[in-house]
Amino acid sequence: MTIRPPAEIGMSLDEVDTPALVIDLDAFERNLRRLADRVGKTGVRLRPHAKTHKCPVIALKQIELGAVGVCVQKVSEAEAMVYGGVRDVLVTNEVVGRQKLRHLMALAHTARIGVCVDDPAQIAALEAAAGEAGVTLPVHVEINMGGNRCGVEPGEPALHLARLVAEAPHLSFAGLQAYHGSAQHLRGWAERQQAIRGAVEKAALTRDLLAANGIACDNITGAGTGTFEFEAGSGVYTELQCGSYIFMDADYGRNLDKDGAATRAFEPSLFVWATVMSRPAAERAIVDAGLKALAFDSGPPTVWDEPAATYERASDEHGRLGIAGATNRLHLGDKIRLVPGHCDPTVNLYDWYVAVRNDRVEAVWPITARGAVY
Amino acid sequence: MTIRPPAEIGMSLDEVDTPALVIDLDAFERNLRRLADRVGKTGVRLRPHAKTHKCPVIALKQIELGAVGVCVQKVSEAEAMVYGGVRDVLVTNEVVGRQKLRHLMALAHTARIGVCVDDPAQIAALEAAAGEAGVTLPVHVEINMGGNRCGVEPGEPALHLARLVAEAPHLSFAGLQAYHGSAQHLRGWAERQQAIRGAVEKAALTRDLLAANGIACDNITGAGTGTFEFEAGSGVYTELQCGSYIFMDADYGRNLDKDGAATRAFEPSLFVWATVMSRPAAERAIVDAGLKALAFDSGPPTVWDEPAATYERASDEHGRLGIAGATNRLHLGDKIRLVPGHCDPTVNLYDWYVAVRNDRVEAVWPITARGAVY
Repeated sequence: MTIRPPAEIGMSLDEVDTPALVIDLDAFERNLRRLADRVGKTGVRLRPHAKTHKCPVIALKQIELGAVGVCVQKVSEAEAMVYGGVRDVLVTNEVVGRQKLRHLMALAHTARIGVCVDDPAQIAALEAAAGEAGVTLPVHVEINMGGNRCGVEPGEPALHLARLVAEAPHLSFAGLQAYHGSAQHLRGWAERQQAIRGAVEKAALTRDLLAANGIACDNITGAGTGTFEFEAGSGVYTELQCGSYIFMDADYGRNLDKDGAATRAFEPSLFVWATVMSRPAAERAIVDAGLKALAFDSGPPTVWDEPAATYERASDEHGRLGIAGATNRLHLGDKIRLVPGHCDPTVNLYDWYVAVRNDRVEAVWPITARGAVY
Repeated sequence: MTIRPPAEIGMSLDEVDTPALVIDLDAFERNLRRLADRVGKTGVRLRPHAKTHKCPVIALKQIELGAVGVCVQKVSEAEAMVYGGVRDVLVTNEVVGRQKLRHLMALAHTARIGVCVDDPAQIAALEAAAGEAGVTLPVHVEINMGGNRCGVEPGEPALHLARLVAEAPHLSFAGLQAYHGSAQHLRGWAERQQAIRGAVEKAALTRDLLAANGIACDNITGAGTGTFEFEAGSGVYTELQCGSYIFMDADYGRNLDKDGAATRAFEPSLFVWATVMSRPAAERAIVDAGLKALAFDSGPPTVWDEPAATYERASDEHGRLGIAGATNRLHLGDKIRLVPGHCDPTVNLYDWYVAVRNDRVEAVWPITARGAVY
């Protein structure tokens, strides 16, 4: 029912039905190249996070521009990537449960599949599953960088796990997963720099402790769109996991550059295309995009075509725009672009991207890892 | 990729991979019967809102128990219902745009399809589309009950639209859409009663004004899980649109009954089945269900299997549980049930229900209107 593409190639954007998830291809390609160029100069590797786009079409574009592979968070996302042609996938997450491990090992016959651990029991289960499948799996030890989510503490606890991995016959110790998620949206440039300085210290300390114990740590992987310049220049991180840079979103757009201005590193390229479906009062317009068309965990969308309008309130299928200050037309039936507050979970609501250049549909790309929760 | 059912019929619940959307069939069926019985005694009709479940399998169960049809919010949801066997669907929403109108008219050849308006331009567009398709469409005028979303003001503005509908050759005036959404989650019973008293007055005033102008208003439709008893007993409302009663959710669970106790009208029957995937510290457990597995717009889920645990923070693929006060086991690999904060947008994240009785999978039902945004 819902997997029909929402647009025909060649259509003008105006004709595309709403809500639809639209990529501005020119802006998107500028973002892709901008990060590839910046990272290319540093000598670190780029392994973009596919949890942002969930689409092997985009993953392969990133790899064409020099990325070594992609990251994902879920086994089912890894399946979407591998079966879409990607040959190097790191699951930047712990994988727990018999079925998930079997799916993971099936992929390891086709592609290089890395995975993370933060508990001896996970290592034992991975070893058993890899042995049963007859594969050798690269395993990263995840360090808690201060987000207090998954990950062991740096230093001795990480060494303990690295030893267990190194000793397991069907696992190889592949490095440290050292992503500092809670640093990504610190607004000030110096705040983010400071937070990553702490992360770099924890990673270096752990790497050196491992080396002193005879365990080589060839890869320290992490970083996101908010902080990658610091990890890239650290001399410690060897791989970057930026994801959101391809699309940006209203939340990342609130980060500040070194000079205190709103970030110019990347530009919004992802939009929810919506219709004004009711104009019941002079000061408000109702659009057809609410909780099922946009993620609100990082705040409401901004109104790209009329920045003076405010997305005031979402219900399941509606959005209320306050338009008292707006000067552009927001008449009944008008279609407008909204910039999602948070790109990843917004993408997760759609089955297709409508890729547009010069206001004409150039392609529709399936979001094959949409809903990939396991 | 993601449309594979997440469970096999006959499996024990323990074997079902996570995250999965699980229905406790016994509780679900009690909820279905409870509302059907209560409404059956009142003489008003029940037209449950299918925006909650998005699943024709469930819609047909509601109709078997006496419902006259279902409501939906979107044309694409109506398609899922009609092509799943439902023959009477009311779109409780305005429909704007050429493509949407054509899809709506295509359905009207197969089923009774109602729709709402709050603007003369919508009426003109509906009339043109219905004329082109050679159908006659029942049209409701939506009244703003105080939620300040869609809907014209009661009284004269509604009369004006009702006249335009009645005069249109291919439309028939079918009544008033009078849903008071913002009353549903007022916590106190008396507060909800008071709010619906106001709604009933607005609806009655408008109905009487229409009658005085020669326009019969045979249907006043509205009400939700939080307030239906008031609309049902009003003598004015003729049709109820409850949706969430089948599942309940943590948010509705915070409503209070007349005696001040937490509501006992219905019981939770919908759960997100999740795995403890990391136990990095004594006071916290990380589960594999975050923003892509649960909706958070009405607050976090509660932990059904350990009420002393608190779902503290969600990221895209993780949930952090505070477990300092918990006494049940929440070990690495344990699977637990979470009660979603808000059922409708949670359901929208899944392709399948796993329907369970006595901890065994009895059926898997496709959520065919998942992602039905247009």
